[in-house]
Amino acid sequence: MSKIARFGISMDESLLARFDKYIGEKEYANRSEAIRDLVREKLVQDEWQDSEKLTVGTITLIYDHHQRDLTDKLTRHQHDEHDVVISSMHVHLDHHNCLEVLAVRGKPSTIQKIADKLISTKGVKHGKLVMTSTGRDL
Amino acid sequence: MSKIARFGISMDESLLARFDKYIGEKEYANRSEAIRDLVREKLVQDEWQDSEKLTVGTITLIYDHHQRDLTDKLTRHQHDEHDVVISSMHVHLDHHNCLEVLAVRGKPSTIQKIADKLISTKGVKHGKLVMTSTGRDL
Amino acid sequence: MSKIARFGISMDESLLARFDKYIGEKEYANRSEAIRDLVREKLVQDEWQDSEKLTVGTITLIYDHHQRDLTDKLTRHQHDEHDVVISSMHVHLDHHNCLEVLAVRGKPSTIQKIADKLISTKGVKHGKLVMTSTGRDL
Amino acid sequence: MSKIARFGISMDESLLARFDKYIGEKEYANRSEAIRDLVREKLVQDEWQDSEKLTVGTITLIYDHHQRDLTDKLTRHQHDEHDVVISSMHVHLDHHNCLEVLAVRGKPSTIQKIADKLISTKGVKHGKLVMTSTGRDL
Repeated sequence: MSKIARFGISMDESLLARFDKYIGEKEYANRSEAIRDLVREKLVQDEWQDSEKLTVGTITLIYDHHQRDLTDKLTRHQHDEHDVVISSMHVHLDHHNCLEVLAVRGKPSTIQKIADKLISTKGVKHGKLVMTSTGRDL
Repeated sequence: MSKIARFGISMDESLLARFDKYIGEKEYANRSEAIRDLVREKLVQDEWQDSEKLTVGTITLIYDHHQRDLTDKLTRHQHDEHDVVISSMHVHLDHHNCLEVLAVRGKPSTIQKIADKLISTKGVKHGKLVMTSTGRDL
Repeated sequence: MSKIARFGISMDESLLARFDKYIGEKEYANRSEAIRDLVREKLVQDEWQDSEKLTVGTITLIYDHHQRDLTDKLTRHQHDEHDVVISSMHVHLDHHNCLEVLAVRGKPSTIQKIADKLISTKGVKHGKLVMTSTGRDL
Repeated sequence: MSKIARFGISMDESLLARFDKYIGEKEYANRSEAIRDLVREKLVQDEWQDSEKLTVGTITLIYDHHQRDLTDKLTRHQHDEHDVVISSMHVHLDHHNCLEVLAVRGKPSTIQKIADKLISTKGVKHGKLVMTSTGRDL
């Protein structure tokens, strides 16, 4: 279990007043929690700059499963990368459209390449890679 | 079934040469597919500006399930919004860290509010909302 | 002159260690300065959500001044909006390419509309709107 | 002078209808111009991934010039990098707040480092780096 550090921050009262308003709107329990979130968000952005560090992401895809061979092709791509693609969830949005989300773990460049390949597949209407984190040291 | 339209594009040869290089790197089948992706990406961004239109998103969360009450709290938040949260997938990253992805459908402002609430919950280390689309007319 | 408030933050030691590393890399003088920057960045993002509040931006444009009528057209657009466009700076990048940066002040929607119009002008190769702030209460 | 290439694009009629609506809202002259903009935007993003290629950016800063030594410090930082910082524009927003925009040219990593240093300087309230392009081959 990690130990807790405490330290002081100084800030103009007017800036703090605006921040407190923001904290209230976003329903944070307190300033520490809100600031920890800001810090972690920056660190996650930074983590993705480091090409050799193992990290975690999600890939969101919207596609029409009536598109010929598409489901097969997407499944095949994912199996080719079974050491990176951990698991996936499929949602039937309507008669035509599917939402699929993949959880992936690997190096930033590997994850980016897999996301590019899936998103560029014919029939995939929209795709987005979320760069998150293994959660360690956060 | 939607009908296919065809139209011509003019572009400087040097710009087209760079675009063809990009298409190759991203493994697009052809220029039409790559351009359709650029178009759809812009339209999805635009869709999220329209506060009244039903849309689709995914919320990615990283958290430590040892944090007291956290799993309960996250589940409760999601059930409170069962008309928006369609389903979720959970991945055990290591002994401590979990990745959870939620598929959500609703108005942009509703989805944003739920994402804010989940991400601001104490113990959630990183969170990200992906704004995607119902896939209709894309 | 605004008064300075002081308050305490608690954070896991491992998270703080990573943040201190980040602070060093970015050459921040201390944790307070780094955290104030994170806070201000969030507040500026928020400010741009509020459609009625006066705010400040910069519009960066890259264009080829040999394109017929382009310089005239861009100047005309800017004069039409002289209550919003404060001033501009022009840099000659090479024989063909110019960089122009405009400082603008107005409502978010007005600024966005002007940026859209300038960026969509034929001959403008790349354009980007930076949403910053009047600096008040920050 | 670069030669113009022409090529055909196929697209679902419903997608094209939505794109035409978008083109109208953004006041593009025609589809070619809108699509060239989408293409150039992607290529500029890509350009910034290539760490060795000379590129162009703008750095926007908001600061309070009453902050002791700040103007001197910012000027000194800029002079230290006179081979990268091409020129700057200064706008007096109110009695306290200044907007400064710098035009910079160099390698992505060099530009990023200068932007980090300026933005992290005590008294700078908000800063943003725009990654644009030399305009060549766009």
